[in-house]
Amino acid sequence: MITTANVKNGVNVDQLVETIGAVQSNPELAKFEFRAKNNWINGGHCVSSIKSFYGVGAEDESRQETFTMESSHPHVLLGQDEGATPPEIVLHALGSCLTAAMTYHAAANGIDIQSAQSSLDGGVDLQGFLGLDAEVRKGFDGIKVKLKVKSDASVEQLENLAKFSPVFDIITNPTPVAIEIVKQ
Amino acid sequence: MITTANVKNGVNVDQLVETIGAVQSNPELAKFEFRAKNNWINGGHCVSSIKSFYGVGAEDESRQETFTMESSHPHVLLGQDEGATPPEIVLHALGSCLTAAMTYHAAANGIDIQSAQSSLDGGVDLQGFLGLDAEVRKGFDGIKVKLKVKSDASVEQLENLAKFSPVFDIITNPTPVAIEIVKQ
Repeated sequence: MITTANVKNGVNVDQLVETIGAVQSNPELAKFEFRAKNNWINGGHCVSSIKSFYGVGAEDESRQETFTMESSHPHVLLGQDEGATPPEIVLHALGSCLTAAMTYHAAANGIDIQSAQSSLDGGVDLQGFLGLDAEVRKGFDGIKVKLKVKSDASVEQLENLAKFSPVFDIITNPTPVAIEIVKQ
Repeated sequence: MITTANVKNGVNVDQLVETIGAVQSNPELAKFEFRAKNNWINGGHCVSSIKSFYGVGAEDESRQETFTMESSHPHVLLGQDEGATPPEIVLHALGSCLTAAMTYHAAANGIDIQSAQSSLDGGVDLQGFLGLDAEVRKGFDGIKVKLKVKSDASVEQLENLAKFSPVFDIITNPTPVAIEIVKQ
């Protein structure tokens, strides 16, 4: 007998249902730790490498590739433009996460997604970063996301599915960041 | 007469001082808008492209390259591992931004930074994302950053400089995200 995997939106729904069942019977499996290593090159230019993570009760051994990502600043921000700026990279993470959350939760709910593209923009007043006005925040004053989706689901359903996004939570709610500086 | 640019930590300090002066006399120049376009490939796999931005009173025309970045999920998260996950990408953005903020503000204050590397980790309980426990948040419950720096400045000084980071602000404080879903 040939069995075909039950795949929707590119998500293996059988594996998703199994995962949910496994986590329900052992919540420890749901605890993940993600990591990055970052190296300063010069000025506002940095390179990160990402590989190891903990999850499903163990250190991951499946990931083969180390993902290397740059970050830099354009000329008007005194850089050599070797990569996107950190706030632009946040937009990349947010757009990807909203989309993936929507497609995964749609798959779990039997909803087809045919296509999805988004455009994101975030405004920032550099008087905050430059320390010129303590009333002005350093980060984005707000982010607008326009997400175009081909699906039979309603706009409201799709928005609720997208909002399962972990990065949406990280950005819209306060996430504690503990910084330990170690002098070399 | 040959003049040498006043560069510290890879940052052109003369240009930085000029920028601060220009913004002080015309705060409109400090208003930036950063953007990303994101395309869903399949499952939890997306690709972003980043190029255009607005700043210094005009649409940027200096950036030549379009930065393309992937995001995906490892096998245990039902993906094909074509790229880092969105929360890992947030760690990349945060590490890069803390470091760049530190080196820029150090340069402005006459502080030398010889080297900087950081490791970042963030814990997440997937019961939140999976919708299994409404009490569990979907994003990181916290991020730890260990930043190793070679510099004569004190740990406290360096930490205060790093905290000018826009991404640190975006993550630690609530940043409004407006989502508009458009059916195709």
